[in-house]
Amino acid sequence: MDERVRRSRAAVLAATSDLLFERGYSGVSVDEVARRSGVAKTTIYRHWPSRTDLLRDACANIGTPQTTPDLGSLRADIAALMGALAEALTTARWTAVLPSIVDAGERDPDMAEMYRRLQQGYSAPFEAAIRRGIARGELPADTDVAALAAALIGPLFFRRWFAREPLTDGFVREIVRIVVG
Amino acid sequence: MDERVRRSRAAVLAATSDLLFERGYSGVSVDEVARRSGVAKTTIYRHWPSRTDLLRDACANIGTPQTTPDLGSLRADIAALMGALAEALTTARWTAVLPSIVDAGERDPDMAEMYRRLQQGYSAPFEAAIRRGIARGELPADTDVAALAAALIGPLFFRRWFAREPLTDGFVREIVRIVVG
Repeated sequence: MDERVRRSRAAVLAATSDLLFERGYSGVSVDEVARRSGVAKTTIYRHWPSRTDLLRDACANIGTPQTTPDLGSLRADIAALMGALAEALTTARWTAVLPSIVDAGERDPDMAEMYRRLQQGYSAPFEAAIRRGIARGELPADTDVAALAAALIGPLFFRRWFAREPLTDGFVREIVRIVVG
Repeated sequence: MDERVRRSRAAVLAATSDLLFERGYSGVSVDEVARRSGVAKTTIYRHWPSRTDLLRDACANIGTPQTTPDLGSLRADIAALMGALAEALTTARWTAVLPSIVDAGERDPDMAEMYRRLQQGYSAPFEAAIRRGIARGELPADTDVAALAAALIGPLFFRRWFAREPLTDGFVREIVRIVVG
C-alpha cells in the first residue's frame, strides 16, 4: 500500500471513530465521514464496499488494551486487572459507544462476529491470568476458564451499563473476593 | 381516563413496542407509530409531549417479570432464578432490543434513569432471595446485597450480549457454584 493510500485510509478511519464516539453506531454516515476526512466517497467505497465494512474496521480498534500483569499470585493479578478495567469503564470514551455496537450486532451477524472477537481480546488477559493460576495450582485443573472470566468481567459491565451504579473500589474488591476468594 | 382514551393509549403503546422490537430504539418514529396505531399524531403528542416520553413509557413495560421463588435455601432460590433468567435471555424478544435502550441512556439522562429503574425491577427478586439468605443465616449479616446480585446477573448478561457464547446449563450452574458455593 503506498503512502498516500495509507494516509487517506487512516484519515477515513479516524473520522469514522470520531463520529462513532460522538453519535453512536447508527449516527455514522459515509457522507459525513467523507466530509470530515476530506476523502471522496468513491475512494471510501473502493476500500470499504459498505458502511458496515467501514464501521467494522473502525470498531475493531476501540477499547483499552490490557496487558496481563504478573504479580506472583492469581489474586494479585486479578485485582490488578479488575482495577484497570473498572478505571477504563469509568473514564474511557469508548464505553459510551459500546452499547450501540452491541446493539448493531443484534441485527447484523457480521457486526456480532466482529464484536465477539473484540470482546475476546478484552477477555484474553483475564483468561491468561486464570490459566497461570491453574498452572500454579491455585485453581483446580478443570477450572472453566471462560466462566471464571465472565464471573469477573460480567459484574463490572453489568454495573456500568445496566445497573448504572458507581464502580467503586469497594464494589470491585467485593467481586474479586466473591469470585477468587 | 375514559374508555376511548384508554384504548387509544394502549394502541399507541402497543405500536411503539412492536416498532421497538422490530427496529430498536433509534428506529421508532412518531409518524410510524401514528400510522400503525391509527391514532393521530396530535393525539399522541397530547399524551406524550416528545418521542422520548413515548419511548420511556413503552420501554418501562418490557422484560420478563420474575417472582421470587421460596424453595427453602439460598442455593435453591438462586439456582431457580438463574435458570429462569438464562431462559429469558435465550428466548425473549426484548433481549434483542435492550442494548438499543441502554445505548439511548448513554446520550439521554432521562432514558438512563428509566432504564436504571427497569433494571432494579429485574434485580429485585435476586436481592429478595439474598436478603432471605441473610435472615436464615446462610450469608453474613453484612453481605453487600447489590454486589452479590451483580455477581450473579452480570455474568449472564455478559455472555448474552458481550461474549456472545451460549448460555448453557453448565455455564449457569458454574456461576451459581462460584458465587453462592
